[in-house]
Amino acid sequence: MLDRIRIVLIGTSHPGNIGGATRAMRNMGLDDLALVAPRCDPKDREAYSRASGANSLVDAARVHDQLEEAVADCTLVVGASARSRHLPWPLIGPRALAESLPTALAPAQSRVALVFGREDTGLTNAELQRCHRHVHIPTNPDFSSLNLAAAVQVLAYECRQAWLATREAAPAADDDAAQPFGVAWDNPPASHADMERFFAHLERTLTTLEFHDPDNPRQLMARLRRLFLRAHLDSMEMNILRGILGTMDKRLRDTAPAPRDGE
Amino acid sequence: MLDRIRIVLIGTSHPGNIGGATRAMRNMGLDDLALVAPRCDPKDREAYSRASGANSLVDAARVHDQLEEAVADCTLVVGASARSRHLPWPLIGPRALAESLPTALAPAQSRVALVFGREDTGLTNAELQRCHRHVHIPTNPDFSSLNLAAAVQVLAYECRQAWLATREAAPAADDDAAQPFGVAWDNPPASHADMERFFAHLERTLTTLEFHDPDNPRQLMARLRRLFLRAHLDSMEMNILRGILGTMDKRLRDTAPAPRDGE
Repeated sequence: MLDRIRIVLIGTSHPGNIGGATRAMRNMGLDDLALVAPRCDPKDREAYSRASGANSLVDAARVHDQLEEAVADCTLVVGASARSRHLPWPLIGPRALAESLPTALAPAQSRVALVFGREDTGLTNAELQRCHRHVHIPTNPDFSSLNLAAAVQVLAYECRQAWLATREAAPAADDDAAQPFGVAWDNPPASHADMERFFAHLERTLTTLEFHDPDNPRQLMARLRRLFLRAHLDSMEMNILRGILGTMDKRLRDTAPAPRDGE
Repeated sequence: MLDRIRIVLIGTSHPGNIGGATRAMRNMGLDDLALVAPRCDPKDREAYSRASGANSLVDAARVHDQLEEAVADCTLVVGASARSRHLPWPLIGPRALAESLPTALAPAQSRVALVFGREDTGLTNAELQRCHRHVHIPTNPDFSSLNLAAAVQVLAYECRQAWLATREAAPAADDDAAQPFGVAWDNPPASHADMERFFAHLERTLTTLEFHDPDNPRQLMARLRRLFLRAHLDSMEMNILRGILGTMDKRLRDTAPAPRDGE
């Protein structure tokens, strides 16, 4: 389970935090690190100093330009978030998140990304809207800004606790099926890349339909993203929705406005 | 409860770790720090830099020569320990420890100390033998040495979780707002009747679109029901989806099939 949990750090400014994050990861048995557009040299001396022996994780970290690339193969994407956002999103605590992971990671092809934002400004709304869930580490309201490596430490610790709990529990059932909802599921979850293709398709179709105006988007796509990410689509649901959009596209293409009365 | 938990750091070598520990403490609502025979200047620039705003805790830290002085008034002393010692000692995990604290701190005069050892060698056997219990943070056996500030972070986090749990157990809050997702939501949930009207509308539109054949329904509507019920739609999401369906209906009504090539 732990080998299919990826830590994704976006726009990190301080190499010491990358090092601290890798040490926290290795301590807890995680080893998959992706960096998105780091704002520092990830191989700075300070990174290795704080890694304190987890140098191999610093060396192995993949660097991406975009969040999309870093999480394309992930079936559950979780963003670390401060509490209040204009558009509320499903928000869970670290323990509830970790306790859901053995189930989320039961299907063989599943992979989870835990995404952390910039030291100063966190994740952007656009980034948060690419996440199925947001996780919030409860902190003192008067002093709520966690150090980045400390936030990674807390979530990595909870992941390890959850993993240890599964090992203490009885021998695992042969959970081949996806079960993000506490029961054996019939279809594997859709990947992040599938979801992004779906959202792009949905936006195109709604634009053609003139229901959506990209020049005056308001919160439409944000609300639809929130809805469908919250539902955590499986691959067949994804196919059905893409099928509906494709059929609509065809009808919109194949039909012309009927002549109006009097013309 | 949190105001009667003291963090005690023995023989700390790196001022950055003192700063990191104070930041972790303040994040989690702890503010009582004692330093025993530090092997660095606790007010070094690096301490303030890592404290990142928790400077007041660095300034307020009391410095003692001996562990005895630092914990004299404590009713429960817990030492952070690596797992194996010659003499087995009651060893608990961070969660079990934290969950015992509300009880341990119920008496008015009670006070708990969480004691952390040196970066390189931890606590001595003599120091460990002054503790009521030892707490062990489960780590990767191949890479078990936690950074000092990270260890403080994990225990402080668990203390806060346990404290929050006692508050949740207390009289329920006035939950007027819909919050099926762990956060105050922006719109009330759709009613059952709303959902049924939506499903009826969805089925009509998909039938008109010839995506759905009521005479050969297969599992289409069942799967769409499962998806949208699982998402637990709010009233605005419901309005958006009904709006999309209504716009599609209008387009399907207003348009006629274009003449085919060759006809």
